[in-house]
Amino acid sequence: MKKLRIAQIAPLVERVPPKKYGGTERVVYHLTEGLVAKGHEVTLFASGDSVTSARLIAPISESLRLGRKTHSATIVTMMMLSKVYEEMLHEFDIIHSHLEYLTLPYAHKVRVPTVLTMHGRLDIGEYGKMLGLYPHMAYVSISDSQRRPVEEINWVKTIYHGYPPSGFEFNDMPEDYFLYLGRFSEEKRPEQAIMLAKACNIPLKIAAKIDPTDQDFFDNKIRPMLDHPLIDYVGEVDESRKVALLKNAKALLNTIDWPEPFGLVMIEALACGTPVIVRGCGSAPEVISHGKTGYICQTRLDFINAIRNTDKLSRKTCREEFERRFSADTMVNNYEELYYDLLQKNSFPEATHSKDAQRSSGLMQLRRSGVFR
Amino acid sequence: MKKLRIAQIAPLVERVPPKKYGGTERVVYHLTEGLVAKGHEVTLFASGDSVTSARLIAPISESLRLGRKTHSATIVTMMMLSKVYEEMLHEFDIIHSHLEYLTLPYAHKVRVPTVLTMHGRLDIGEYGKMLGLYPHMAYVSISDSQRRPVEEINWVKTIYHGYPPSGFEFNDMPEDYFLYLGRFSEEKRPEQAIMLAKACNIPLKIAAKIDPTDQDFFDNKIRPMLDHPLIDYVGEVDESRKVALLKNAKALLNTIDWPEPFGLVMIEALACGTPVIVRGCGSAPEVISHGKTGYICQTRLDFINAIRNTDKLSRKTCREEFERRFSADTMVNNYEELYYDLLQKNSFPEATHSKDAQRSSGLMQLRRSGVFR
Repeated sequence: MKKLRIAQIAPLVERVPPKKYGGTERVVYHLTEGLVAKGHEVTLFASGDSVTSARLIAPISESLRLGRKTHSATIVTMMMLSKVYEEMLHEFDIIHSHLEYLTLPYAHKVRVPTVLTMHGRLDIGEYGKMLGLYPHMAYVSISDSQRRPVEEINWVKTIYHGYPPSGFEFNDMPEDYFLYLGRFSEEKRPEQAIMLAKACNIPLKIAAKIDPTDQDFFDNKIRPMLDHPLIDYVGEVDESRKVALLKNAKALLNTIDWPEPFGLVMIEALACGTPVIVRGCGSAPEVISHGKTGYICQTRLDFINAIRNTDKLSRKTCREEFERRFSADTMVNNYEELYYDLLQKNSFPEATHSKDAQRSSGLMQLRRSGVFR
Repeated sequence: MKKLRIAQIAPLVERVPPKKYGGTERVVYHLTEGLVAKGHEVTLFASGDSVTSARLIAPISESLRLGRKTHSATIVTMMMLSKVYEEMLHEFDIIHSHLEYLTLPYAHKVRVPTVLTMHGRLDIGEYGKMLGLYPHMAYVSISDSQRRPVEEINWVKTIYHGYPPSGFEFNDMPEDYFLYLGRFSEEKRPEQAIMLAKACNIPLKIAAKIDPTDQDFFDNKIRPMLDHPLIDYVGEVDESRKVALLKNAKALLNTIDWPEPFGLVMIEALACGTPVIVRGCGSAPEVISHGKTGYICQTRLDFINAIRNTDKLSRKTCREEFERRFSADTMVNNYEELYYDLLQKNSFPEATHSKDAQRSSGLMQLRRSGVFR
């Protein structure tokens, strides 16, 4: 197959790859590296402190979170999109944007096809309505469940995130603890993980950061629960400490109670051979195979049974499932296949017509549904 | 002349007209009313609680500041722009956007000309660079001084803001006080107004709101200065109380120390016949005629002399100058003339070519200047 000239457009919030948090930037990093390794000519649009094998084009020298605060995030992000779509368009066969709705007014009228991976939740605010104004774009979901709030747009594929297996060491001999990993936010239900540990008499390590918005919740609800011999709060951890905690855990105790679009932490656990005990919301039932790589729970009793039956799960199977379904190679191959598909479809001018029809009917629908008076 | 089909696109922060603060929304209101009165077919895109003689199209029922907080301001504003440019474009002869940079990716490729009035400062952040990527658009400045940081784009006209004279009562018999009006923010230098009042032994009324970001400044710097027989702090005031305070003041003491793009409060004062004593920065020397409708000051001594010579200024002249230069009619006529001008130019296809050339040279310049690596 002909090698492609690909633009990858990353958020500017964190560098690519991020130093700590920043799931989207991390996924863009692995995708870009994978496409370069396959011989494609990739240009990465991202903050100037990014590290990449691709050609890097940066509107700002440092990522927004680290750099000077005078930048308007929207303006510098739009400047990057203007660069891609209005100056450099002829340099690309395909554009892959991770900037979601901000991409739409740029992308929908140009001849070069754009792939839009949606990274966030679609059930909040006007997100779905905005996408509904551009139903003909090529949208990629990161789980099937993510699509539910906005089903009527042109979803072309679900592509799960993937990581290189080399980044995670498989461990078949865990220590005697369960792990809660993430943030102390209300919808992640850390208090339930703590209560379950106490109820089941199992040691629980907690590695989590406290965002400013979660400080009250932590102070009032969580901090009083931490002073207990079974609970070991280790604070916020860096990448290598995170992997060590994951691979030595008996299981990841993921009490999250919101429609998680994907949940990278779950595949990080599997990559170490660590099964995942998780509430059955959002992407969880797609990512975790109940009774095989973890347990999907609904009730408190489900969680208790899952904790008691953790040793019945094969850690080797967890790792194998990760390698098969959630490796960076799998993700890269899926996107590459999609790029070729879209380019092939794009070469038939008839397709454009039917897409236009589809699009204006989308606008008509929204008018009827009363989005606009 | 043929009547025009005009789209006015307002910010969604406040309703049109705003209940309290919101200079842009107020100007859009008077402009829209004036254009309707002249027989044009105007469609106002604004929040649903707006009041207008034009046809109103609203993406949200209540303005962002009053409505529910789950709206993303950027998304709902982009939805409004998508509506204008991608669904209703054929319904307009001309589009007038007050949304600044967010309009650019929508407006620059369509056949219907867009007028972009810049309402804010252009000397901060990446604002100027973003406009520089679209130098061919028809930009309107609200003062000549506003243009300074971004001179190389296509400024088509400076059009000063205007208000209907009927909204302000002329008063030739002021009471014995000077007035500070606005916000307690550092760059407005309220402490200087207070110090000047004490130094000159003149009564000063202060009508100002305290934004959350200014609370520390107010508590530490301003509050201790207020307890003085000459100083009368009346709090935050509504529109009618503001006009009463303005018309009864000997002069507006405008110690502001930043490049104000226009300064509506100055024309509100003039409308009442009240002269303006102001620091010579930003638009001040354009709006106020030194020795005629007020005094332009640089030093503390200038301010003191100005205060002492306030009675030498004719309040009648202030009102006349307002009616001639800053009435809504003047503003509406200026915009109407601009719309016709642009439509006439737009009908020559050659013009488009030279504009495209101009535009790509703008991008080339930015590349050379190192905005992008």
